[in-house]
Parts: sequence; structure tokens; C-alpha cells
Amino acid sequence: MASPLTSRSTDFPRWYQDVITQAELADNGPVRGTMVIRPWGYAIWERMQAELDARIKDAGAENAYFPLFIPESYLRREAEHVEGFSPELAVVTHGGGRELEEPVVVRPTSETVINSFFAKWVQSYRDLPLLVNQWANVVRWELRPRLFLRTSEFLWQEGHTAHVSEADARDYALRILHDVYRATMEEVLAVPVRAGLKTARERFAGAIRTWTLEAMMGDGKALQMGTSHELGQNFAKAFGIQFSSEAGSLEYAWQTSWGVSTRLVGALIMAHGDDAGLRLPPRLAPVQVVVVLVRDEEATRQAATALVDELASAGVRARLDDRVGTSFGRRSVEWELKGVPVRVEVGPRDLAGGEVTVVRRDRREKRSVAVGAAAALVRADLDAVHGALYTEAEERQAERTARVGTTAEAVAAAAEGFAVLPWDVIGTVGEEKLASEGCTVRCLQAEDGSLPRDEHEPGLMAMVAKAY
Amino acid sequence: MASPLTSRSTDFPRWYQDVITQAELADNGPVRGTMVIRPWGYAIWERMQAELDARIKDAGAENAYFPLFIPESYLRREAEHVEGFSPELAVVTHGGGRELEEPVVVRPTSETVINSFFAKWVQSYRDLPLLVNQWANVVRWELRPRLFLRTSEFLWQEGHTAHVSEADARDYALRILHDVYRATMEEVLAVPVRAGLKTARERFAGAIRTWTLEAMMGDGKALQMGTSHELGQNFAKAFGIQFSSEAGSLEYAWQTSWGVSTRLVGALIMAHGDDAGLRLPPRLAPVQVVVVLVRDEEATRQAATALVDELASAGVRARLDDRVGTSFGRRSVEWELKGVPVRVEVGPRDLAGGEVTVVRRDRREKRSVAVGAAAALVRADLDAVHGALYTEAEERQAERTARVGTTAEAVAAAAEGFAVLPWDVIGTVGEEKLASEGCTVRCLQAEDGSLPRDEHEPGLMAMVAKAY
Repeated sequence: MASPLTSRSTDFPRWYQDVITQAELADNGPVRGTMVIRPWGYAIWERMQAELDARIKDAGAENAYFPLFIPESYLRREAEHVEGFSPELAVVTHGGGRELEEPVVVRPTSETVINSFFAKWVQSYRDLPLLVNQWANVVRWELRPRLFLRTSEFLWQEGHTAHVSEADARDYALRILHDVYRATMEEVLAVPVRAGLKTARERFAGAIRTWTLEAMMGDGKALQMGTSHELGQNFAKAFGIQFSSEAGSLEYAWQTSWGVSTRLVGALIMAHGDDAGLRLPPRLAPVQVVVVLVRDEEATRQAATALVDELASAGVRARLDDRVGTSFGRRSVEWELKGVPVRVEVGPRDLAGGEVTVVRRDRREKRSVAVGAAAALVRADLDAVHGALYTEAEERQAERTARVGTTAEAVAAAAEGFAVLPWDVIGTVGEEKLASEGCTVRCLQAEDGSLPRDEHEPGLMAMVAKAY
Repeated sequence: MASPLTSRSTDFPRWYQDVITQAELADNGPVRGTMVIRPWGYAIWERMQAELDARIKDAGAENAYFPLFIPESYLRREAEHVEGFSPELAVVTHGGGRELEEPVVVRPTSETVINSFFAKWVQSYRDLPLLVNQWANVVRWELRPRLFLRTSEFLWQEGHTAHVSEADARDYALRILHDVYRATMEEVLAVPVRAGLKTARERFAGAIRTWTLEAMMGDGKALQMGTSHELGQNFAKAFGIQFSSEAGSLEYAWQTSWGVSTRLVGALIMAHGDDAGLRLPPRLAPVQVVVVLVRDEEATRQAATALVDELASAGVRARLDDRVGTSFGRRSVEWELKGVPVRVEVGPRDLAGGEVTVVRRDRREKRSVAVGAAAALVRADLDAVHGALYTEAEERQAERTARVGTTAEAVAAAAEGFAVLPWDVIGTVGEEKLASEGCTVRCLQAEDGSLPRDEHEPGLMAMVAKAY
């Protein structure tokens, strides 16, 4: 536990792996590419889930659950869809002690099974919009797995909706992008994101438009944080999702789908982590404040317990660390690794002078404060840490984003961060060239940063980066 | 939607299936034995999850997540364990476009993979107790599936813990049984349960003791609601979970595991449902009160909206049904099917007289009440419905439990309900005979209803029933 982390500047991927191990976030599972999410990592994911779920429900979607197993034939109904997934599938051939008549696939996504039920449930325009979300595990076989970022099994939510018109579907896809995803990422995870449109090359198989949110990690690379797709009528036609309109005609529904995954935990680590470990934004942190008992004496225990109680009754997620059998230094290192936003140290020497020590994780500077003022300071700190982390990430992104004029310059700039250049200087040929250099167009935006309607609009800017 | 349900007395299994379909709780999935949990069914499960999860956390366990895929070899490490599961396994033989070198099993439970990690995480007595819970899907191939009760894939939580002593493990297994499971079942689901010890024949493969909670369904059959197992040192020895004790010796850990599943939704339907559909206990109901707008006029809409707001601000889960395009009768039937505990009807005629109509779902009698008094009546009703459902279930259980003296009498009594008889008149031979008649010993209790320490204690009583 106490071995130092590799520094980010020495080897960023190794630092990432070190943080995951030493902060006890996750382990590799016994089957290659799978992941054990340990309690601290899972508590972070649970908090993300809760924040996302509340916003998804505010947007009117209801949770449901669809089966893990999908008949192979379902995946063939939407041609582009199966092409996008087939090399990644896990296939069950035996069940109940026998070989199955038709092999079943472990869902790589639930598009096909959900749409086959939408076809049963949707009859009339009165049944629309149909807004369904699912929290589930999915499997996409990974040859080069990396914990949280690319694992053969991951946890996610996938939303699937059906609407009467293309405009309604688009409004909803963008509502999810902004009110659910961007809001959670920026207001809870404290990670600034860029919204844009994926190019045809990068969009989801079967979608007509993929909207994305992209964030810059600590090493300047991009990470796709979440996507929201307009599916047009592709799946509706493949699965027969038709409704009688208000005018009496039979129409195909317009659809969306959208998802974010445990990859967000990886994003959180890489967006905010420093050489001492994780730094959790307070609104997300499972423990916001840890009160560390330096030595177990009557006075210190009383003061520490009173502070935890005072914070808890003010709605702060506070925890007492009274493991005095473990050295104080080791415990401090552990809480820094785990990224708890504020630490309060209650020791006999300070307390004799009527004081405790308060440490903000993001800055790591120690401040002595009167016992009676500690709770108020801690709460002010919690408010401040969110903004400080967000600003730091935003400034890094601004500093490491270069406006360039050619594809070659974009490749050079992508070694350090994001490159922004006119989309019309890239084009399909340019995208191939970028790919050969390990770069991609992460998204397209209008010159003023707003969302384009499609990639053929004049004057679009492309954001190019290396990506996770 | 409006077709009447089969009555319970005509055909209980068909009534059960009708309720599931017409209340829109679930559908069969495309792969035999799998289940689509629709939004109303899933909302009920989500509420159960939240109630259980809070109590699990109060008991000190932390959530984590372990992989879906388990190497086949892991299941062989604990001999009794694999024997219990092998005919039910789903096996993945292909992944990433190729045949796998070692096939992997879709988890039927996570005992083996969790214990292999416990072996890594546990070193010292200071690491104990280790208290881990997981919410996950598991797969056990079912040849005779029934929605919620027996499905090839189901959702559950599985807790796994490691302790320094047998006594600590037992205390924890029983704490989960009482403070988490029994509390949720009785105080939230309003289902009275009997706690007892499973016989050696019925206990979980690999356990040394299985504690169970059994409830009586509307047809007199038993349903196992949840189990909590003492695993002894069986898995610790198979997986090498050892710790250095406070005295310095190397010891094997003592373990427990415990789980409840989406089967509880089936139990809820069968424990409380009547010939008009589901009856949800208020603490569990996703919607506690529905305010039905009979006709959409300014006065009715205003009164209905004001009532919903008043209830919501008092913390009641209230919903407005303003789908006046659908007939009032049809909507009333729908809310009865879905089991919402209290319905308020706001129509122009009543409202002209300053009144609305309040209907308790459990009794189905209509009461006219002054608009201003409606919210208070609704809240009193919500308090009353829980107790009424619980009492009704408890009285049924008392009426349909017979004390008998022989195995043959037990079989006869089990046609109607539970039979209670001395365990020593059954014995191993008697259990075989019961099984041949479709009956089982559901649990053993001491004469005074308390929990026995083991099945060889003198004077134990056996509860015999047919079971789901």
C-alpha cells in the first residue's frame, strides 16, 4: 500500500494502473479482460449511477431490464449493427448440460432485443414517446483490455426511446446529452466536456447521428465520456416498430439510444488524479471528509466523534478513521490515494491547543483551525474543491488545445493535446491519414462551439486528438 | 388490457401469469427461460433493492462487483458446490471471433470468484470481518421456467463475508436474516415470514447451515423468500482464505453467504394479489396514490393537481392520471391491476358538491370525502393498508397451518397449506417420502418457534409444505 506511485510524467499509463491498484479501485478478473470492481471503486460508480439515474428519471425515462442472452439471429436483422459487433461477441453454445439448438450471444448492447419488444408495445401515437432505460452489464471481447477503460465486461446504462417524429427524437437525444450527461459530468464529476457530432466514420453502427461528449485527460488525450444517438428509422424498419398516427396513417417510429459506462470511473481518475493518487470531486465522493484520529485518547476520540456527528447531521458524508493500530502516516497516504476531498487530523498536541488540522486533498496544504470552527471550514472547503478541480481541468484543456491549419499539424498537436482545424481540410482522406497516425476526429462543432445539424454544414471545425 | 383475470380459485398459476401480463410487470424473453422486466415490474424491484441495500449497508457490508464470466476450473475447487450447479450452467465457448482455450461459465453465483479474491485480500485478523455484497444477474438454466419464480437469468444480491470465528460468522448470518431480510419482508413487503433451519437435504451445496425465511402464498404453498448460509471453513480451505490471528497462528476464515432475488416480486404478487390484480404494500409501491382526473375541466384539473402537489410535498409518491382520452373505467381497472394502494377520483359531479372519491385498493370500497380532507385521509389510508395486508396474510397462514402427527398427515395437510410435525417422526426416510409426494421440509424450528442450532437438537418441529 505504501509504495509510491509512478509519477504521471514518468509513465502515465503505469501511474493510472498504480492508482487503481493502490487506491483499491479494481483488480483484473480471472478471465482475461474482466474486472473486479472493489468496494471503493464500486462506491464511486454507485454515486455516479445515483446522480445519472435521478436525471434520467427527470427526463421522463423509466428503468426496465432486458435479458443478458440474445438469439444470434436478432443481431443479423440490422446489417450495420451486426457488422459493428460481430468480432466482439461472446457466444454461449451449451446450456442446461446440452448443446443449444441455436447459440445465444451475450449482449454487447440491448438494441436488438429492446427493439423487438418496442415493436410489440408500440401501436398508436398515444404509446409515444416510449422512454426506457436499462442499467446492465454488457460484454464486448477485448484483446487489449485496460481496467475501467476497455474491459470485456462492463457496466453501463443504455437508454432506448421511440418517438413520432425525427425532430422529437433529436430533441430527446440532445436533452439526454445536455441535461443528463453533461450536467452529471460537469456538475458532479467536475470534468469539463466538449459536445459535438461524430463523423460518419466514428458514429455508432446503425445511427444516423451520434452526439458525443469528449474530455481531456491529464496526459492531453481525449476520452469519449458518453454518446447519444439518433437512430432514424433504421431499427424501426428492421424490427417493425410502427404506430398509427393521429391522422390515421401507419408510420415507423423515430428512435434514439444513449449510454455511459464504468469507463467514467477511468475518466475521473485520469482527469483529476495527481502523483499522490485520486482526487475525488466532493459531490461524487463516497466519503467527503475523513476525520483521522491520530492517537486514541479520551479527548481526541471525543473531539473526533463530535466532529463526525456534526458533519453527518449537516448532510456531509463523513467517516471516522480510528484504526490507531495502523500508523498515522500510512493512513494519511491511504486517504490521499483514495482521493477523499477533505481530511481532518485530530491529535493530542493540536487538541491541547484547541486546534485540529484540516487538509484539502486537491492542494495538500495543512491548516490549523480551532476545533469549534472546523465543521464550517470543512463545509466551505467542500464547496471550493469542486470548483477548483473543474477550473484546473478546464485550464489544462485550454492550454493544450491548438488551432492548426493542416492534418499534419493536427497530428503534431495531438501529441500534446487537442487540435482544432477546419473539417473541410480533413475530409474522408484526411480521416484515414489521421487514423494511420493514431489520431481521430473526436467531434465536429460549429465555429462558435455550437452543435451542427450534420457534417456537411459549411464552416465546421474538427477536434482531433489521440483517444482512449 | 381490460380482459378479466382468471380467478385465483379457478386456476392460481394462470391467475399469476395473467396478473404479470395485464399489470405489465414482465414478458418472456426471446431465449427460453429469460425474462423482460417491464417498467412497472422493475420499479417494484428497484424499491425492494433500495430498501434491502440500505439495510445491508447498515449491517456494515460494502457493495462490489465481480465478473460475469468464471473459468470452468474455479467451479471444481469446491466439490459439493459444482455438483449442485453443473446441470444448470451456461457455457461460453467462443469469444472475440475464436474458440476459447478454456470455456468460461456464466456465473450461477459468484461464490468461487469472490472467494478467490478474498484469499488475496485477507492476510491478518485486522482485515476481518470482510463484508461484501454484490447486486448482479446470474444464470441457472431452467427447464420449467416461470416468470420471477424460476428464470434462467435472474437478478439478485449475494453477500459474502469472512470472519475470525464460527460464532462471529453465525451471528452475522443471523443478523442478515433478521435485520435485513425479515425486516424488509415484513416491514416493507408486508409479508409475514417464518425463520428456520434447512435440513441437510435442503441446504445450500457447500454450506454447513442454511437459514431460511419461508412465506405462505395465496394458494397455501410455501415460497422460500431468502436464505443466509454459514459456510464453515469449506470455501476457505478450497480457496486458501487464511489469516494470521491476534495470537500469531495461521487460521482459515469462517464464512457466510446470503441472497435474495427477483423471485421476491413473484412472492409479492402471490402473497397479496386478489382477483382484481396486484395489491402493493404502500412502503414498497412505486406510486402510492394515483389521482385520476375523470374529465378534464378547469376545476377538476386544478383540484387534482393541487392534491397531487399537496401529497408530493408531504413525501407521498403521488401521480396524476390525466389520460382522459382513455375511458375512466379502463383506467380504474388498470390502476387496480397495478396495485396502487390508494386511488382518488376527481370528477365534475363530485367536485360540484365539494367532494372527491377515495378508494383503498385492498378493500375496494369507495368513500366520498371533502376535497380539503382528502390528503389527510389518503395518508391515514397509506398507514392502514400496510397493516391490513400484513394481518390478512398472517391470518391466512394461521388458518392454513395444521399441526399433524405423521408424514402421511403432513402430505394431506400440505394440499391446503403448511403442516407442522415433530422432526423426529420424519427423518431421512420421511424426507424421501415427502419428496415423492411433491412436499418438502421447508424448515426446522424449536417448539417455541425459535431457531435451533442444528438439526440434531431434541424436540424440533418441521414445517412441511408444497413449495414454489
